[in-house]
Amino acid sequence: MAEKIPRDPDDDYSAAAAARRRDFIAAQTGARLEHSGQFSLDPASLRGNIEHFTGIVQMPLGIAGPLLIHGEHAQGDFYVPLATTEGTLVASYNRGMRLIRAAGGVTAAVVDDAMQRSPVFEFENARAAREFGQWVDAHFEAIKAQAETTTRVGKLRNIEQYAISRMRYLRFNFTTGDAAGQNMVGKATQAACEWIAARHDTITRWVLSGNIDTDKKHSQMNVLHTRGKRVVAECTVPDALLREHMRVSAAAVFRTRQNSTLGAILAGSSNNGSHAANGVASVFIATGQDEANVAESSAAILHTDLLPNGDLYYSITIPSLIVATHGGGTGLATQRECLAMLGCAGEGKVHKLAEIIGATVLCGEVSLASAVVAGEWVSSHEQYGRNR
Amino acid sequence: MAEKIPRDPDDDYSAAAAARRRDFIAAQTGARLEHSGQFSLDPASLRGNIEHFTGIVQMPLGIAGPLLIHGEHAQGDFYVPLATTEGTLVASYNRGMRLIRAAGGVTAAVVDDAMQRSPVFEFENARAAREFGQWVDAHFEAIKAQAETTTRVGKLRNIEQYAISRMRYLRFNFTTGDAAGQNMVGKATQAACEWIAARHDTITRWVLSGNIDTDKKHSQMNVLHTRGKRVVAECTVPDALLREHMRVSAAAVFRTRQNSTLGAILAGSSNNGSHAANGVASVFIATGQDEANVAESSAAILHTDLLPNGDLYYSITIPSLIVATHGGGTGLATQRECLAMLGCAGEGKVHKLAEIIGATVLCGEVSLASAVVAGEWVSSHEQYGRNR
Amino acid sequence: MAEKIPRDPDDDYSAAAAARRRDFIAAQTGARLEHSGQFSLDPASLRGNIEHFTGIVQMPLGIAGPLLIHGEHAQGDFYVPLATTEGTLVASYNRGMRLIRAAGGVTAAVVDDAMQRSPVFEFENARAAREFGQWVDAHFEAIKAQAETTTRVGKLRNIEQYAISRMRYLRFNFTTGDAAGQNMVGKATQAACEWIAARHDTITRWVLSGNIDTDKKHSQMNVLHTRGKRVVAECTVPDALLREHMRVSAAAVFRTRQNSTLGAILAGSSNNGSHAANGVASVFIATGQDEANVAESSAAILHTDLLPNGDLYYSITIPSLIVATHGGGTGLATQRECLAMLGCAGEGKVHKLAEIIGATVLCGEVSLASAVVAGEWVSSHEQYGRNR
Amino acid sequence: MAEKIPRDPDDDYSAAAAARRRDFIAAQTGARLEHSGQFSLDPASLRGNIEHFTGIVQMPLGIAGPLLIHGEHAQGDFYVPLATTEGTLVASYNRGMRLIRAAGGVTAAVVDDAMQRSPVFEFENARAAREFGQWVDAHFEAIKAQAETTTRVGKLRNIEQYAISRMRYLRFNFTTGDAAGQNMVGKATQAACEWIAARHDTITRWVLSGNIDTDKKHSQMNVLHTRGKRVVAECTVPDALLREHMRVSAAAVFRTRQNSTLGAILAGSSNNGSHAANGVASVFIATGQDEANVAESSAAILHTDLLPNGDLYYSITIPSLIVATHGGGTGLATQRECLAMLGCAGEGKVHKLAEIIGATVLCGEVSLASAVVAGEWVSSHEQYGRNR
Repeated sequence: MAEKIPRDPDDDYSAAAAARRRDFIAAQTGARLEHSGQFSLDPASLRGNIEHFTGIVQMPLGIAGPLLIHGEHAQGDFYVPLATTEGTLVASYNRGMRLIRAAGGVTAAVVDDAMQRSPVFEFENARAAREFGQWVDAHFEAIKAQAETTTRVGKLRNIEQYAISRMRYLRFNFTTGDAAGQNMVGKATQAACEWIAARHDTITRWVLSGNIDTDKKHSQMNVLHTRGKRVVAECTVPDALLREHMRVSAAAVFRTRQNSTLGAILAGSSNNGSHAANGVASVFIATGQDEANVAESSAAILHTDLLPNGDLYYSITIPSLIVATHGGGTGLATQRECLAMLGCAGEGKVHKLAEIIGATVLCGEVSLASAVVAGEWVSSHEQYGRNR
Repeated sequence: MAEKIPRDPDDDYSAAAAARRRDFIAAQTGARLEHSGQFSLDPASLRGNIEHFTGIVQMPLGIAGPLLIHGEHAQGDFYVPLATTEGTLVASYNRGMRLIRAAGGVTAAVVDDAMQRSPVFEFENARAAREFGQWVDAHFEAIKAQAETTTRVGKLRNIEQYAISRMRYLRFNFTTGDAAGQNMVGKATQAACEWIAARHDTITRWVLSGNIDTDKKHSQMNVLHTRGKRVVAECTVPDALLREHMRVSAAAVFRTRQNSTLGAILAGSSNNGSHAANGVASVFIATGQDEANVAESSAAILHTDLLPNGDLYYSITIPSLIVATHGGGTGLATQRECLAMLGCAGEGKVHKLAEIIGATVLCGEVSLASAVVAGEWVSSHEQYGRNR
Repeated sequence: MAEKIPRDPDDDYSAAAAARRRDFIAAQTGARLEHSGQFSLDPASLRGNIEHFTGIVQMPLGIAGPLLIHGEHAQGDFYVPLATTEGTLVASYNRGMRLIRAAGGVTAAVVDDAMQRSPVFEFENARAAREFGQWVDAHFEAIKAQAETTTRVGKLRNIEQYAISRMRYLRFNFTTGDAAGQNMVGKATQAACEWIAARHDTITRWVLSGNIDTDKKHSQMNVLHTRGKRVVAECTVPDALLREHMRVSAAAVFRTRQNSTLGAILAGSSNNGSHAANGVASVFIATGQDEANVAESSAAILHTDLLPNGDLYYSITIPSLIVATHGGGTGLATQRECLAMLGCAGEGKVHKLAEIIGATVLCGEVSLASAVVAGEWVSSHEQYGRNR
Repeated sequence: MAEKIPRDPDDDYSAAAAARRRDFIAAQTGARLEHSGQFSLDPASLRGNIEHFTGIVQMPLGIAGPLLIHGEHAQGDFYVPLATTEGTLVASYNRGMRLIRAAGGVTAAVVDDAMQRSPVFEFENARAAREFGQWVDAHFEAIKAQAETTTRVGKLRNIEQYAISRMRYLRFNFTTGDAAGQNMVGKATQAACEWIAARHDTITRWVLSGNIDTDKKHSQMNVLHTRGKRVVAECTVPDALLREHMRVSAAAVFRTRQNSTLGAILAGSSNNGSHAANGVASVFIATGQDEANVAESSAAILHTDLLPNGDLYYSITIPSLIVATHGGGTGLATQRECLAMLGCAGEGKVHKLAEIIGATVLCGEVSLASAVVAGEWVSSHEQYGRNR
């Protein structure tokens, strides 16, 4: 082996170029990419989404619903597209949606919204770094103006500052319209930093990323300060419904939640829930989100309350749900269809999508938590899943 | 809306049943799932992978390589399938592979291997919990035998114990052959727990999950104790090559790594690298892994060393890489083709796959770190990506 | 200034040498150390406890109790010495002790016991590091023998291994008798490492501390794996007593606990309690413990349960309580008196001391949590404390 | 046992009352508090510092120095009082001070300053919580005015907000003059909260502490957002001096720092240094600080840089150094003498004290790190310490 992957200098985003690469792989590795070559999307649409386009992965798509949401943007019943290869997943979310619909539905809200790029500046000593920090605060409006020269959509909301040693780590927070915005804010922050750097001879060194964004990485920072949308989804489930649908009492679910939260503290996880990543990843793939952001977006904090009347208040907070309805994979053929299914294609729908995902995740939490308490977790996988 | 999703009681895994659901969605939501209905996979093959199968998501597939690996299982040049919608990603990994190939390739090794289920047992008081813990240690062989009655493949390796309050959190560690094994170990642990519970009247309550696995969740626990495979990938990149390929010096990359590591500590992230999640998620989707496991598998610890001769040692440790070559989505049509491309279809290839992913991630780290230092991060996204 | 601090080459642990240093300080700084020079302890007893002995700090000592404990080692009523300068502290602990005594007392148990030193070994690559790990496992008995040549008391219990990059971080766990044991295990581990290093030419470098002990530092590692004693203290407080003594209901305290635990998760703290550090630090100073170990020993995990009858189960787990009844400051004049007050002077009393501290901390938790819920937190400080 | 501790209703802060309690202890426990009864401080001065005053602990006091500081407040040479019972500690700090003095001294700066109380407010749902948050922002000036009615010194700087579920966790940040200020800000925040609560009928419940301060507890929150003073101390140590004084090269120390930082990440510690808690705790006890705050104040982030000329830049950032020169134990007889020794008695000296502690801790870090690398860690304890 060791040949270079073929590219077509004239038009690399074509069925022919992809076929040539599949042939190349067959020749080099013996693997024939037959199904991978069966696609209906237009290769020309992939410019900006992938390089060395070779074919597709056919990712199974299921649907769950109706999911009843009382959001500020998402209102009414929804059918949620879930792309997954994990048996039981769709069934489990569907079961949760049925229960919670019977309980009156999910209340959802986006409570914060920010996308970051976080440069680091270095100085001769900590004092110079501190003075720089004061300068940044004093010149926020000018910095904001510079950053926003690069984008019609992105707005610089604020700049957080973190002082360590002789460095100043800044965290530029933007709103980014319908886009997830990582690239948008990267470009804007770079422009701002160059403007800043030209005005400070005390800076000895700066880099566009100081790793506190924390892009594509879980962090306590993002749990605290939001990356993307911070979404809360809530519901109250009557004890009677839990007993009827799930064969568990509200009290038993609540009690097991205490163990799970303690387990999370013990394990050093900032996710004290069950499996938010399942819902997040499945909707992400279906709707063209950046699947690597599951790293951040899988963080979720559960809070439950056993009400005086014996019913169960259940809520989930997803602090860093990174979603888009524009840009990235959201415009691709099947992904756009999935967005349309949710009424989230077109402008101004990104908060609606965030609420739907929050509500979906909540249903999956109630469902799995109930199954675990009912002792049905394993048996449901026996029924629906492969025995892996 | 609010109709129930149609199911075919006779054969729900058929093109007809899927079409009926697409029609249903069109009727309910107005969204026409045309591209989503274009698939070449056999719906009958999806039993155990999804419920309410409705169609597919066409996920663009690119390839990067050749990637030169000196593993214990993966040896030679590889072309790596990356399913993504994020522009620049394939190009960035490809660039890293070219550099590191010129530098002599990647050394990779799986250094640990365990999949968990973690039940929690509750007692009247902490003393009883402690005595239970001693009993579990004393009866390990019998517990192991019980657990293994449920599986031909899974082997119970050891049981970790964590004491909190009057509870005992156990962490059953299994090896699971070619499977990722979450369901396998769930079933085995359930059997073991039932056997245990039948022998202890001091147990006041137990649940199969105490949340310290931590399944589908990032945690410090998994960074310490591995979930799936623990993979290390290493290379040494000559300073001259970095200057030639990346327009940066080894010293500059090393220095910026210090800032990034400090940023990770500051942010409370156990990932001090750049974007491991990108490589992990892309190979996961391509090869039929459980995409939700990006939550755990995106954790990565970078360690670099500036050698006396000025060259750069670069390594990545992925403590919880959850991979399979059997079960889950690994047998689906396109996913199997991608595994074949890597020579990872068939039995006994899961460590090889783990090494390949580790090596891929390492190349992406060197590539992005260099781009950031060279000040080319934004401009490369300008060139390859959509401006989101 | 800038004179060197005077030392007496013949006998630096004397009242005269101390006086000379006080005079020196007066000359250099103008500060007259009058009260600091008033001590009844014998300077000769301080060899091994301090250098440049100059005088004493007079630390106020209060007592709280009776504290009723049903431990395995501590049984009956105790009066607890608390050295502090913080008003309200003694009163608050005392109030909790009274309540819990009325409720039947505290059950306490030491559930784990280990003191560590954690060297790190480096190799050419990760594979060599893994092989080294296997060798360590295989030679545990010989390593143990080597380690134990240096101490009559310390016993090597087990060696944990953590793999990162081409390093192997080991964590040597010892039991250390009545001593806290940090120095004992340092010496023993050094001997073991030298023996190991002499037998391995693949080791490229090793250091006695790889920082995962984590000595004098908080860490998730120690929360999981214990440093010192792991102590659980438990009690059940009737709702009626809470209302009578504290003017709060069990349900209200329980509910506020949920907020506090959520706050701890949000803040990234592995201490979801109120103020364990107060009790720990005060007993530590009184009984001659190493006060710097408050860093580790202040970690505490609270777990409460609202029982079906409305009463409140309350427990605290201190995962890393580093205590001694021998060595360190435990033999000094006043500290020995405080140990005697607890019946913890003499051999074989260290677990008893651990139980007493655990029980003390529990009482302080119940007391402060009740005060916060009752809205009396600020007013009690108004009554007892200085307004700082 | 089980008698109530005697109190004197007329004057409980007297030598007679203390003696009565010592007699009581002797009667109840058999322990004679002889040395504990030997004090020169005036019991009447202890009102507001302790309840049930019974005697003192005689805590050995050593001194280290001269420590050369180039601070903004601390300038010149200092002799630092260290109260400890741990052999080697004073010697180790002293050795570091000598080295760093030879290297030109320490640069120190306070880069942030805030003390918190963090109430939590609960609402019907997340939307109401979000609206409350906006209201708080809009009414900051009025809230500030209310808070400041309770104190002449405390100033409300800003209010951070953290949204979880249907709660809003607020973090009131104050400056507190020369006091540590925990009680001051508790009282001020309580007044502000009562004012807020009277104006909001959507609040269903509030508590003065939501546990994100995080008072007397380590947390990532405090590492990020400061509790008390955020201090940076820096120095540059020539390679030649390290070799001469410490028998190590700058490169070797730097390289071992990489292992230690990695160890900290692995262990989940936000302290990647050696033993900051030793210096912090010892100065805290000597100068009358609240020793329980070692829980927060022991966090420390080290950053080193190997300079092109081979010298070593060494810095420490203590993000939550809680110090006072007024209130608490700072006015007690011996503690005031220790403050005087540092020139920190009197008004407006708290930043000076913070700089001195930062500089002290830095010296201890360089000293211990060098000893570990030189392989002299154990042997120095052999020489100076008890073999515990």
